[in-house]
Amino acid sequence: MKKWNAPELRDVCFADSFFAPRQERTRFVTIPAAIARCRETGRWDAFKLRWKPGMPDQPHMYWDSDVAKVLEGIANLLAVKRDGALEAEADRLIDDIVSAQEPSGYLNVYFTLVHPEERWSRLYDGHELYCAGHLIEAAVAYFEATGKRKLLDALCRYVDLIAALFGRAPGQKRGYPGHPELELALIRLYRITRNEKHLALARYFIEERGMSPAYFHTENPKVNLLNLLADRPLREMKEATGHAVRAVYLYRGAAEVAAETGDSELLSVCGRLFDNMTGRRMYVTGGIGSGPWGETFTHDFDLPNQYGYAESCAAMGLAAFASCMLNLTGEEHYAGILERVLYNGALSGISISGDKFFYSNQLEAGASMYEFGHIQRRRSSWFSTSCCPTSYCRFLSGLARFFHSWAEDAIRIHIPAAAMVNLPPGALKIESDYPWDGQVKITVLRGGNFLLGVRMPDAVEVRLNGKVLQGKRDSGYWSAAREWKAGDCLEYILPMPVEVIRCNPKVSCCAGRIVLKRGPVIYCIEECDNGVIPSRLAIPVDQNFRLKKMQIGNMDGIVAVTGEAECLRLPVNDALYYTEAAHAEKIGFIAVPYAFWGNREEGAMSVWIREKSKK
Amino acid sequence: MKKWNAPELRDVCFADSFFAPRQERTRFVTIPAAIARCRETGRWDAFKLRWKPGMPDQPHMYWDSDVAKVLEGIANLLAVKRDGALEAEADRLIDDIVSAQEPSGYLNVYFTLVHPEERWSRLYDGHELYCAGHLIEAAVAYFEATGKRKLLDALCRYVDLIAALFGRAPGQKRGYPGHPELELALIRLYRITRNEKHLALARYFIEERGMSPAYFHTENPKVNLLNLLADRPLREMKEATGHAVRAVYLYRGAAEVAAETGDSELLSVCGRLFDNMTGRRMYVTGGIGSGPWGETFTHDFDLPNQYGYAESCAAMGLAAFASCMLNLTGEEHYAGILERVLYNGALSGISISGDKFFYSNQLEAGASMYEFGHIQRRRSSWFSTSCCPTSYCRFLSGLARFFHSWAEDAIRIHIPAAAMVNLPPGALKIESDYPWDGQVKITVLRGGNFLLGVRMPDAVEVRLNGKVLQGKRDSGYWSAAREWKAGDCLEYILPMPVEVIRCNPKVSCCAGRIVLKRGPVIYCIEECDNGVIPSRLAIPVDQNFRLKKMQIGNMDGIVAVTGEAECLRLPVNDALYYTEAAHAEKIGFIAVPYAFWGNREEGAMSVWIREKSKK
Repeated sequence: MKKWNAPELRDVCFADSFFAPRQERTRFVTIPAAIARCRETGRWDAFKLRWKPGMPDQPHMYWDSDVAKVLEGIANLLAVKRDGALEAEADRLIDDIVSAQEPSGYLNVYFTLVHPEERWSRLYDGHELYCAGHLIEAAVAYFEATGKRKLLDALCRYVDLIAALFGRAPGQKRGYPGHPELELALIRLYRITRNEKHLALARYFIEERGMSPAYFHTENPKVNLLNLLADRPLREMKEATGHAVRAVYLYRGAAEVAAETGDSELLSVCGRLFDNMTGRRMYVTGGIGSGPWGETFTHDFDLPNQYGYAESCAAMGLAAFASCMLNLTGEEHYAGILERVLYNGALSGISISGDKFFYSNQLEAGASMYEFGHIQRRRSSWFSTSCCPTSYCRFLSGLARFFHSWAEDAIRIHIPAAAMVNLPPGALKIESDYPWDGQVKITVLRGGNFLLGVRMPDAVEVRLNGKVLQGKRDSGYWSAAREWKAGDCLEYILPMPVEVIRCNPKVSCCAGRIVLKRGPVIYCIEECDNGVIPSRLAIPVDQNFRLKKMQIGNMDGIVAVTGEAECLRLPVNDALYYTEAAHAEKIGFIAVPYAFWGNREEGAMSVWIREKSKK
Repeated sequence: MKKWNAPELRDVCFADSFFAPRQERTRFVTIPAAIARCRETGRWDAFKLRWKPGMPDQPHMYWDSDVAKVLEGIANLLAVKRDGALEAEADRLIDDIVSAQEPSGYLNVYFTLVHPEERWSRLYDGHELYCAGHLIEAAVAYFEATGKRKLLDALCRYVDLIAALFGRAPGQKRGYPGHPELELALIRLYRITRNEKHLALARYFIEERGMSPAYFHTENPKVNLLNLLADRPLREMKEATGHAVRAVYLYRGAAEVAAETGDSELLSVCGRLFDNMTGRRMYVTGGIGSGPWGETFTHDFDLPNQYGYAESCAAMGLAAFASCMLNLTGEEHYAGILERVLYNGALSGISISGDKFFYSNQLEAGASMYEFGHIQRRRSSWFSTSCCPTSYCRFLSGLARFFHSWAEDAIRIHIPAAAMVNLPPGALKIESDYPWDGQVKITVLRGGNFLLGVRMPDAVEVRLNGKVLQGKRDSGYWSAAREWKAGDCLEYILPMPVEVIRCNPKVSCCAGRIVLKRGPVIYCIEECDNGVIPSRLAIPVDQNFRLKKMQIGNMDGIVAVTGEAECLRLPVNDALYYTEAAHAEKIGFIAVPYAFWGNREEGAMSVWIREKSKK
């Protein structure tokens, strides 16, 4: 069923000014920092099983996953570039992990050391199968990067144990993961092993989830099934509900199962859930899961700017789900959402420096914002539930999967970030200053007879070696099938106007407000650039916005948008309420990419700005 | 120190169309319903001490206060009008309460039946001293209404026990209430008993609170001292912080202590906290405590409309604190806040029918609003923590304390609601349709030589028996001292324009929005009147707003405000985001008093409406 393949990590080398520096910092800052935090907190060495009751640093039930995600990040780095010291570090960790495995195949630090008596008894919140999934993803990535099978084999033994325990045969438990993840991990494993048991187990988990009577209620009658996406079978779901990270992991797991089984009904369920999620419940930045209580999806059009949640992990999960759907269907709207998330809501959670994080990505923050739990206006270097920092380790090191796709005789470029791309049908060099500029040049490095598809608006003209080349226009992609020769040079210019985005007024906090967008980049206004809090500003849209190059932290070449705004005067004595007419004065404003907010002095920020209506 | 006295409840009889019907429903609906809910849930009979471990309906640590507040409401009713059956019901309850008292004087159901071993060991959250305070208030009210001393004497014995336990003498605990309430109750008791120990204990609690080392940390090192208003001594506080109900109860307790001790420094601290609370942290409706997590004050200008908290009990507590400060200082701005709260944020928490409640009073609600905990868009008839419904029992039956003040030779009218007022210096009949109309006629029923002060803007002309009477104008009050004769008739007309209120743009959700206000009434827009959700509307302020009489539930004579608005069209396919220009069409709108929202079919509501800027 799968139409398109994602590139191998080693086959894409970014040369753009947006992601390439972030990837470099992932290697030199983010992953080393995560290893250090994992060591300090006891996570890294937990697999040595030295912890005993009464000792500090009691392992938590999701520690295994934190370490696994960092290991997956390391594997991603090693897939691109050998690094003996890093590989030796990973090998030592893997020795520890495998040494923690019981003869039965069982492998989980928390349920071995802390509460062994609770093993397999609290799937709903125990993260036991979730940890197994992340260990599998790490094992697969490490095998793909290094060819080493030790961790992979250990995880296969663990999967044998899980497959024997769970299922519909007599004596088996009819359970499934409280936090989905294992489903998609099993498909990644299956693609290596081609062991049908691995596919069958993933499929069982997807199909069994939400069946009546509710399995989680046998564990704890008070469990909120909606939040756990277990209130009904996936096939009956019509809206994105529940815990947002659980949701996107589940949907992607289902899509991956559909890819392997050819189940088009299941795929269409995934498409329906994707459409509700992105068309009714997604922030303009690509953030999802607006509910600050429980990190959940809430209702259509409930997208509060301040106190909205939009967990970093959920955005990264949405990118992966969108990419999966894009490769399964080839439909351009998945690429649009993928690009939206990548350049905005998924990146905002990590500082430019690579070692400070937001767990929650609200669209408005300010001095008067009340910080509670993960809703913060300052980035943190770690969290006690540190899923987001460890997710960045694997996400940023794995970005190369998202920008291009290939099939036997075809290549597709979804996002024209500057990169060298070496895919089975051919190799290309993409030159651009995307997302800051729309001029793109694609040079064929290794030719061949293949279809080359490039995502662009229909009106964009493409030139091959200087002459217009009429390609096929097919719902968002230009494409041409021909014998490409090394040195062939394709050029086109994407229009990059500053766009004004408006929101459905059902989102009450956004009614009458606008967002500035240019290319894939969503802009916000930060107090530190403007000297005033953004809520004082109203932007007239009938003006010629200007562009300005600027540097934030050690990212330079950033394109800011500038223009004129009206700035409300503060009332006399800073009164809370007043009856006088509102006075405003003209000032210039600077808007910066949302992905880079919160990297300078603390201050107010807003994505949605009031529109100054026309005279 | 006290300048002014509040009237006795029996001395004010409302005849207005706003509060008089509510008071009637308090007698016939709210209090009977609260008694019924207290019975159903086991609260009412809990003092019989029949509960044993393993039985259902385990008493909760604040049950005593719920029952005490209903009893105080009954006492308020009996103070105005004898009712043999109701008094017999109260007497039976009082017999139960007193029978639950131990020989030592101790009196608390939860710490007698459920966790006797925790007695006096968790002041920080045990509500033990809080319950004592509410029992004292009920006892005082019942004594004042009926002259019966049984409960009062029992509570005096309990206070003897508490006074022996707590204090700075050797062997005493240096604790104080986790939830303030006992402080102000002790002053009410002191005003009956004139027992100096009662005043001294209240003063001790006020002075000791927040001293270092923190007493609550001896009970539990993890206690959040800020939320409990115990992070510093009250005299050092500069901002309204912590749990909003605790805060206003504490401040009022301190003000009542200052009233009795003449401590002007303490009074000025209370004034400073009042000013921060109302000038930086109060909703335009008079709601306070915007933090949905912990029912707390947060920061200056943090007043989210949706998901704001504004607990009903906090608004009622603010009214009582404002009234206390008004009588202590005579300063008009306390009357302004008192009136603001009474007609808006304190009343919004109870349905017109008198038996449905909001715990939290957000300023914006809609179909897309995510309900969580007490943040709801539908009223409930009860809550497991049912402080708000029981607070209404005593608050609405005790409203007569808030509208007028008197001194030896003076009467002040703060709010000209229609009423018969019989105060020591004289008796008056106030005729008006306030708050719907500004025409006021005050007829002297019993004359005398006294100063009559009436709150009004300086420009308002006052006529005595048809002729202009030049009175003294003193910061918000007109006044005249003379020999008033029965039949003297004072008339004036308060201007009642529809006012447009704007908000400091530091409150980001309110920037560019307006509120309509007329007299003391804050208006909101409900979907059910307008056929569209309020976030689609923008109101041009350069128009002549019109008034319209209407009925909601069984309240008639309500004055609605109508006018023209622009209504944003919904985007094609109800798209979440769009780039087309926003199209709006003119429609008429109806705005209704915020206090009456949520009494009809469910739908969206908003207080703050976008301002359509002038052409």
